Amino acid sequence: MSIITITTDFGIKNEFVAVMKGVILGISPAVQIVDVTHAIAPQNILEGAFALWRAASFFPDQTIHLFVVDPGVGTSRRAIAARIGSQYFVGPDNGLLTPIIESAEQIGSEMKFIHLQNSKYFLPIVSRTFHGRDIFSPVAAHIANGVALAELGAPISDPVRLALPKPTKTESGWTAHITVVDIFGNLTLDLPSSALQNRTAVLFRLHQAEISGVVDSYGQRSPGDLVAVVDSEGFIEIAEVNGSAAKRLNVNVGDMVEVILSV
Amino acid sequence: MSIITITTDFGIKNEFVAVMKGVILGISPAVQIVDVTHAIAPQNILEGAFALWRAASFFPDQTIHLFVVDPGVGTSRRAIAARIGSQYFVGPDNGLLTPIIESAEQIGSEMKFIHLQNSKYFLPIVSRTFHGRDIFSPVAAHIANGVALAELGAPISDPVRLALPKPTKTESGWTAHITVVDIFGNLTLDLPSSALQNRTAVLFRLHQAEISGVVDSYGQRSPGDLVAVVDSEGFIEIAEVNGSAAKRLNVNVGDMVEVILSV
Amino acid sequence: MSIITITTDFGIKNEFVAVMKGVILGISPAVQIVDVTHAIAPQNILEGAFALWRAASFFPDQTIHLFVVDPGVGTSRRAIAARIGSQYFVGPDNGLLTPIIESAEQIGSEMKFIHLQNSKYFLPIVSRTFHGRDIFSPVAAHIANGVALAELGAPISDPVRLALPKPTKTESGWTAHITVVDIFGNLTLDLPSSALQNRTAVLFRLHQAEISGVVDSYGQRSPGDLVAVVDSEGFIEIAEVNGSAAKRLNVNVGDMVEVILSV
Repeated sequence: MSIITITTDFGIKNEFVAVMKGVILGISPAVQIVDVTHAIAPQNILEGAFALWRAASFFPDQTIHLFVVDPGVGTSRRAIAARIGSQYFVGPDNGLLTPIIESAEQIGSEMKFIHLQNSKYFLPIVSRTFHGRDIFSPVAAHIANGVALAELGAPISDPVRLALPKPTKTESGWTAHITVVDIFGNLTLDLPSSALQNRTAVLFRLHQAEISGVVDSYGQRSPGDLVAVVDSEGFIEIAEVNGSAAKRLNVNVGDMVEVILSV
Repeated sequence: MSIITITTDFGIKNEFVAVMKGVILGISPAVQIVDVTHAIAPQNILEGAFALWRAASFFPDQTIHLFVVDPGVGTSRRAIAARIGSQYFVGPDNGLLTPIIESAEQIGSEMKFIHLQNSKYFLPIVSRTFHGRDIFSPVAAHIANGVALAELGAPISDPVRLALPKPTKTESGWTAHITVVDIFGNLTLDLPSSALQNRTAVLFRLHQAEISGVVDSYGQRSPGDLVAVVDSEGFIEIAEVNGSAAKRLNVNVGDMVEVILSV
Repeated sequence: MSIITITTDFGIKNEFVAVMKGVILGISPAVQIVDVTHAIAPQNILEGAFALWRAASFFPDQTIHLFVVDPGVGTSRRAIAARIGSQYFVGPDNGLLTPIIESAEQIGSEMKFIHLQNSKYFLPIVSRTFHGRDIFSPVAAHIANGVALAELGAPISDPVRLALPKPTKTESGWTAHITVVDIFGNLTLDLPSSALQNRTAVLFRLHQAEISGVVDSYGQRSPGDLVAVVDSEGFIEIAEVNGSAAKRLNVNVGDMVEVILSV
């Protein structure tokens, strides 16, 4: 039983995602469909990139990840399918896969990219405005049915890549960035906990706030305290215990955080 | 493996939809359940009608569409099941199926309507306030299990029908209406693109705005431009490139749009 | 085919719930997953308790209910699995199961509680901040695969229990409380309809409003009227016909309602 995940900026008010699921189930009736999120900010490719990257590795081998954050729909931007490591990806070629590609490069996974051109695997009529329905959903369903990537179009080696924010080394430590603001108002940084080299004396400065040290869990401090923890992916996270650090500090994705490693 | 879709105004805050799914899976364990939307405005039958109509045709034959926008629950309004073309529909008899019935009439599909009266296929206790759980979900699940419509109650020929807004011919072109405002702020009109008779010189007037011509895709204009495109269903859509036409123009479902066809 | 339901305060903006589903499907690929709700107010165990209690009994025997409202994640709070009657429950030991335990006690259902300690059934690395992913999802999936509760850890007999609000008898009737405010603004009380002893002359007082009598359905009164009905679970509910009683009366969960039974 194959799994197809779906990541979009379509929201849940309209029937768009249901239409995609109808198309998928018409082609591959026994597939398991899982929503990653449909709450990506409209056309925000970077936000979609982080969401799918953070989700994908927790799915089994052979999972097919369908993503439709697609400001270029109807233009000449390419439609692609990819095999990265043991999983498949289908969507517009707009850089959304960049963090997944970078992670794959770090661990040396095999990657293959296909420019989707074989309209035999699309819906009979392809609109100018909804390739999620007309191209990406049917292609994902056909992959679930066992159609080989090579059947879907010609190989390419230059998928679009985004310039992702990265932490930079400073004299006193690091300049890091907020990459995710989650529903609880917790702030994920682009700084892996390994960058702290097991130091206990660390100071985080963002806007007017200073947070000292890294605790093991939220519960080690009192409600309302700002804390730094290692998040569930191994990155540093700034949080307010039982509260919202995002509201308290009025921060946004991309904001800089100074990380000072004392001697 | 049968598919049951669900369209409601129940929102996603409470456990109502989950309860319906529990009832369905208790009767028909292997069914595929797909949410169409639960964000229909409370008791807004017309909004539900457009959402289900726009979704249904993308699902396979034999799909069972369950809909619960039900301001008349507990009154004498009938509960119905229908077979329209190759698909099934189950819900309150309140006109929500009107666009689907009209489309079926246009293409000459067969239709059959049943007044749900056989309580053998309901939950043992039927409440006054939640027929989605007590009548519609179990009936949909029994249809998925192969129970014939004729088993469920007596045939009827007069399902409730709504008066849908329609575009009207004017001297200079058409008066059309906004039927859907989607999550991106795009505005779908009730005017099929065929009504423009392939003319390139078309002017759309709504509130203070004028949009000239129909473009092939959003990407052909610059961010912030208002454009008219043919939407993925073949209707005219007014959109702002990478923005929200709904916010920009402050419009609502039902607002009129003047369409001027120049000679 | 096993069913796993999921109740969290994770919202639907981020990929957290999808990650849990990925973990589950990696261990138990054919399971049916149903979202109960992910809109529990952050860390509000009582709200989660009412939602899961109101949903669980509508699911079939053997259903596994996974719940993650977990302000104590990473502290010494226990992780538990339970069998209550014919269903399974997996989550943090924080009292969220209290209403389900109380209902089971009333009907004399068997109950068994396990302190989850056998890390063989967890993910290989257990984070400090996301036990929903690292402990509860894999344990639920292993139960779906047939792993016995006794395999998962040691039996306990003292699960954490909350003090739930209860209606109290007064000279003239009852003091009841609002337990749920639903998406329509309907207010569920903690008063079962049986407490009215079939009286027709009943007066409900909350804030500035008085509602007289209990009607059979919303449709028996006019739009805008405040009514009392028996809700779909057998409890008294205060509603505004085609409107929101919650907005009109500006009330909250926990507010008191005076119930006066006239002679």
